Amino acid sequence: MRASQRNANELRSIRLSRGFTCHAEGSVLVEFGATRVLCTASVEDKVPPFLRGKGEGWVTAEYGMLPRATHTRSAREAAKGKQSGRTQEIQRLIGRSLRAVVDLSALGERQITIDCDVLQADGGTRTAAITGACVALHDALSGLVRSGQLAHNPMREFVAAVSVGIHDGTPILDLDYAEDSSCDTDMNVVMTEGGGMIEVQGTAEGKAFSRTELNALIDLAEAGIARLIELQRAAVNGD
Amino acid sequence: MRASQRNANELRSIRLSRGFTCHAEGSVLVEFGATRVLCTASVEDKVPPFLRGKGEGWVTAEYGMLPRATHTRSAREAAKGKQSGRTQEIQRLIGRSLRAVVDLSALGERQITIDCDVLQADGGTRTAAITGACVALHDALSGLVRSGQLAHNPMREFVAAVSVGIHDGTPILDLDYAEDSSCDTDMNVVMTEGGGMIEVQGTAEGKAFSRTELNALIDLAEAGIARLIELQRAAVNGD
Amino acid sequence: MRASQRNANELRSIRLSRGFTCHAEGSVLVEFGATRVLCTASVEDKVPPFLRGKGEGWVTAEYGMLPRATHTRSAREAAKGKQSGRTQEIQRLIGRSLRAVVDLSALGERQITIDCDVLQADGGTRTAAITGACVALHDALSGLVRSGQLAHNPMREFVAAVSVGIHDGTPILDLDYAEDSSCDTDMNVVMTEGGGMIEVQGTAEGKAFSRTELNALIDLAEAGIARLIELQRAAVNGD
Amino acid sequence: MRASQRNANELRSIRLSRGFTCHAEGSVLVEFGATRVLCTASVEDKVPPFLRGKGEGWVTAEYGMLPRATHTRSAREAAKGKQSGRTQEIQRLIGRSLRAVVDLSALGERQITIDCDVLQADGGTRTAAITGACVALHDALSGLVRSGQLAHNPMREFVAAVSVGIHDGTPILDLDYAEDSSCDTDMNVVMTEGGGMIEVQGTAEGKAFSRTELNALIDLAEAGIARLIELQRAAVNGD
Amino acid sequence: MRASQRNANELRSIRLSRGFTCHAEGSVLVEFGATRVLCTASVEDKVPPFLRGKGEGWVTAEYGMLPRATHTRSAREAAKGKQSGRTQEIQRLIGRSLRAVVDLSALGERQITIDCDVLQADGGTRTAAITGACVALHDALSGLVRSGQLAHNPMREFVAAVSVGIHDGTPILDLDYAEDSSCDTDMNVVMTEGGGMIEVQGTAEGKAFSRTELNALIDLAEAGIARLIELQRAAVNGD
Amino acid sequence: MRASQRNANELRSIRLSRGFTCHAEGSVLVEFGATRVLCTASVEDKVPPFLRGKGEGWVTAEYGMLPRATHTRSAREAAKGKQSGRTQEIQRLIGRSLRAVVDLSALGERQITIDCDVLQADGGTRTAAITGACVALHDALSGLVRSGQLAHNPMREFVAAVSVGIHDGTPILDLDYAEDSSCDTDMNVVMTEGGGMIEVQGTAEGKAFSRTELNALIDLAEAGIARLIELQRAAVNGD
Repeated sequence: MRASQRNANELRSIRLSRGFTCHAEGSVLVEFGATRVLCTASVEDKVPPFLRGKGEGWVTAEYGMLPRATHTRSAREAAKGKQSGRTQEIQRLIGRSLRAVVDLSALGERQITIDCDVLQADGGTRTAAITGACVALHDALSGLVRSGQLAHNPMREFVAAVSVGIHDGTPILDLDYAEDSSCDTDMNVVMTEGGGMIEVQGTAEGKAFSRTELNALIDLAEAGIARLIELQRAAVNGD
Repeated sequence: MRASQRNANELRSIRLSRGFTCHAEGSVLVEFGATRVLCTASVEDKVPPFLRGKGEGWVTAEYGMLPRATHTRSAREAAKGKQSGRTQEIQRLIGRSLRAVVDLSALGERQITIDCDVLQADGGTRTAAITGACVALHDALSGLVRSGQLAHNPMREFVAAVSVGIHDGTPILDLDYAEDSSCDTDMNVVMTEGGGMIEVQGTAEGKAFSRTELNALIDLAEAGIARLIELQRAAVNGD
Repeated sequence: MRASQRNANELRSIRLSRGFTCHAEGSVLVEFGATRVLCTASVEDKVPPFLRGKGEGWVTAEYGMLPRATHTRSAREAAKGKQSGRTQEIQRLIGRSLRAVVDLSALGERQITIDCDVLQADGGTRTAAITGACVALHDALSGLVRSGQLAHNPMREFVAAVSVGIHDGTPILDLDYAEDSSCDTDMNVVMTEGGGMIEVQGTAEGKAFSRTELNALIDLAEAGIARLIELQRAAVNGD
Repeated sequence: MRASQRNANELRSIRLSRGFTCHAEGSVLVEFGATRVLCTASVEDKVPPFLRGKGEGWVTAEYGMLPRATHTRSAREAAKGKQSGRTQEIQRLIGRSLRAVVDLSALGERQITIDCDVLQADGGTRTAAITGACVALHDALSGLVRSGQLAHNPMREFVAAVSVGIHDGTPILDLDYAEDSSCDTDMNVVMTEGGGMIEVQGTAEGKAFSRTELNALIDLAEAGIARLIELQRAAVNGD
Repeated sequence: MRASQRNANELRSIRLSRGFTCHAEGSVLVEFGATRVLCTASVEDKVPPFLRGKGEGWVTAEYGMLPRATHTRSAREAAKGKQSGRTQEIQRLIGRSLRAVVDLSALGERQITIDCDVLQADGGTRTAAITGACVALHDALSGLVRSGQLAHNPMREFVAAVSVGIHDGTPILDLDYAEDSSCDTDMNVVMTEGGGMIEVQGTAEGKAFSRTELNALIDLAEAGIARLIELQRAAVNGD
Repeated sequence: MRASQRNANELRSIRLSRGFTCHAEGSVLVEFGATRVLCTASVEDKVPPFLRGKGEGWVTAEYGMLPRATHTRSAREAAKGKQSGRTQEIQRLIGRSLRAVVDLSALGERQITIDCDVLQADGGTRTAAITGACVALHDALSGLVRSGQLAHNPMREFVAAVSVGIHDGTPILDLDYAEDSSCDTDMNVVMTEGGGMIEVQGTAEGKAFSRTELNALIDLAEAGIARLIELQRAAVNGD
């Protein structure tokens, strides 16, 4: 039993609240326990320069953390005048994960930007962000279908993400901040509804990990992501 | 009757939700109608260089807007690498307004930073921010008293702010975005519980305004701020 | 009697020297006592992106202070790599004040940039800048009329600005640096020739100010600005 | 057989040239085929602020690419005024990989910075950089032992890295630029001499990858890294 | 005879107006014809980090140009967020030239910063700046002697600068903007009162120059600088 | 005899290695003793905005130094977010020197960018860079002739550069770092094959220099550059 009273293979309490803000074409507050990320999808009739005139669309993401989303206040990136390497890594990961499940040709010359802003952080903000962003993106795409701008929703399947790690020698699912800070290996896995892997990013924070441990972690992640995708489906069908 | 079904002297529906996030020493979600601003207060045991060793504290504020808080997406300031002039004006205003009601000597060598982040914008974000920030700051100061770090709360009185403007020739209170975009004069007023004025910032967007109009606007603001301060009191006493 | 040997309602010695530099379409050195600001107006046949193709013009302003315009040297903003919040506030204020008195449709697709550079500072640089900038802009517009590019001068009326404040309990006009540093309330007022108010920005530096004080300050400012506009008229008619 | 005439499990021609430049405490030119990266190790008697006074050392890395290391010229990051997200990701990865094999307490309050500058790029620059950086770091640490500043070399074991990918359905080792640009899955693996995994970063560029494919890729990487570490050992023992 | 009605070896009308602004320890408006540069010297009781505790002083310079000092408006460097290469070259040149004639040990641990701001430009701004800066610096140093902070003025001799160039095949002295824009070779020479050369910077803008031409240019510069130094002496002795 | 065992008028050992890297249209590693600079020439079918549609080409240069090219590590300019004044001065000098020997009209609307990156520094990096850059540029231009894009090579003559200085009272040629750090006068001279001077930049680091010394320095430089140009010719004819 973990400090959080969860079993090794147990997700935190997950919530996906659609329509959290009113202006965006998709707006989802995703909660993985105390981690809360606001994901908004904004549709624009333009594409980045490298795609102009090709008839294809683009999906990109930006990530930010409110200064006091964390235990101690971090300096505001806008005030420092640049985004950290961590921020850039995360937003590139979110963008790649979403593009992997969207038929960009079917999207037409449009860009959808997903903003993932962490209101409260307790570990796993990037995996929560991917999971919520997928629903926000789905909502934005559904809107384009509803308004007749697209014939069908170009999202081929859902995508979700979860963290896994080796804590005190035991592989565990969906680490909170306390677990994340003290684990030996930390891995983020992004998978699709069909079970395909999109990203696997494992890092030994302390001692190196073995093939056996790698396999155990991926087993945990597969099951966790399957459950997350059920919850995404339920959230979307709830309307 | 205004498009929003409000009387000229009527505030929007106001909500002050304390404890909105869990890490900050004060955390208030303030809503002026559809305008929603998250105000967090962070206490640190350090002061800016110009105050070191003087035994005095400091209160400062930062302001930000999520990229899709607005009707169309704005570029993220962290990505652009600088804060706009508007952002800097607003955060300086919030900081000055709060310092006006705090006895900084009684605070000791501590800095309290109030982060005001707009989750959803519908006009009046700066006045909502000041109104919510005052409660977040009060909560942080109360915490210092509760933990024995301060003998009494160094906030001398409450402070709140509201916008007023002349719309189609009529002075109105607490403008929403639609009203703000089409009014001739826009004024932000910051006042204390005791009725003292802290800031008066009036701007003729279209035609110039007269002394008579100035007086009518300040009358409206005085009444509106009195009501806002009642709501602040109620929010704080609610615990 | 003030330390500067002026009465409470007395302006400093004001000078408006036109043609101070030779390249700009308008070039005015404005002096409010020891405060000296060089205001140049530059006409360009282009407008900002948001106005392209609309047949309208634009007036904008930039503000700077030479590093040793002040008692002690300040770091050069170009060397620091960014303009302070104060600089941005001031240049936005100057731009708004000037646009309020110009018929931008009559200007055609032209941009006029007013650069206000403080050569020597002794309080009231922003109000001196507005007052001088108006004359530089008028000269640039007159030039466009003289050269046949405009049928008439699109400046509808003159605009000027002055600071007022409460110093030792007494409302006074046109504060110098020493007065500004030790006053309780500081207010900048921008008004037109016709007596319309364009901007009123009052800030309680120390204790809050009352409605009565607000009224006294605006009375002082009205009279001071009327006098400044007489001096602008005289300067322009002097050629 | 691949376009490069290599078998699926064959590394490119690898060279590790020590002492490539004269000033650095370690200086290695690493070549993976046509990819050439200069790795220098610089020892400084200071540590980052978060480690001061803790008696521990630090190892960090920076990464850069000469503007014409690539087929077409890329803009110089120093001229653009910021490092790309890709650059930051890579330098963070190199730093983490090296720290995983060094006993930082045994290093004392010293920082070693590894600069990895790509002189010529043909795919796999980050894995070549890690492999070369390990040797440069080893040389710098040996120097500290030789000069009596350290009692023993605090590098616990060697670390190397290689890329693997799925190209036309086949898992292949050590991708060159042409293969990297057209593969479906791209994975970078960092492992130690003892066979422990430090980093596994797999990304589906096109279609998602399966568990079976993941396993095949890691098998390839394990063998490749074992060979790279033999070459590191040989290079170090060559003096 | 030149377009400006000057002989080949004739300086423009030169003016050195001391005490041009009131706050700086030295303040000189230097005019080389229509080129006008304000040079202020600011004394501070601190030195740059590399000199701390060495008992020596430092002299440095910064250079700027008001946006409309020139025929067409240039973007403000503070707004662009960086100083151009040209600005940096010039301010480094001014600083080196001044340090060459000051006994920095005799100055004590003080820094004097010379700000050279071009109010109006008509060619030769850097040479005018050096010539005026020398007088401003001398005044600041005299002030330190007068107030008893220094026993004697640590400026060993005066330094001045002038431009020379080959225009239509003829070597000419002190080029104005029109001459500078159309000359083949442009050279800036900095010399001391004793005839020593501090800087010689010659550039072929069009065709290369010969040894004979180089000699002719330096002859012209020597005579011009001798005259400038007489004028510096006269200006300083005028008080 | 100098510390380096060279005569006063003796160059260091010079090497020009063409084809040092494989992607660039010209790629030369130039060595002046232990100073090693990689010069690559990149041809692009575009010109800077001020030349568009004029049928002329452009040659420009960028300069950088690897962080550990020097005795102690310098901060990476890309990480600091800006290029130093020194870097900008040098790259402007290289660009001007190369443009002086190229017929830009004959180049057509193409830009050639020469990147000069210092791999190892031991004094004279800017003069080595110019000397190597000329060969890289020549190779790129020859390539355009070979591929039929140009009828003839638009480089009119070769250009090279060398440093000279006064060290312990003696004029010497081609200073290494130790000599450069302790000399009184440091001069960089850029000359063409035909003996024309392109740039002469002399600086008194310590005491001023006389006309006699200036002449002696230029004599040394003329002879040194003649020898460098022989080596350039030999390198180019070697293929």
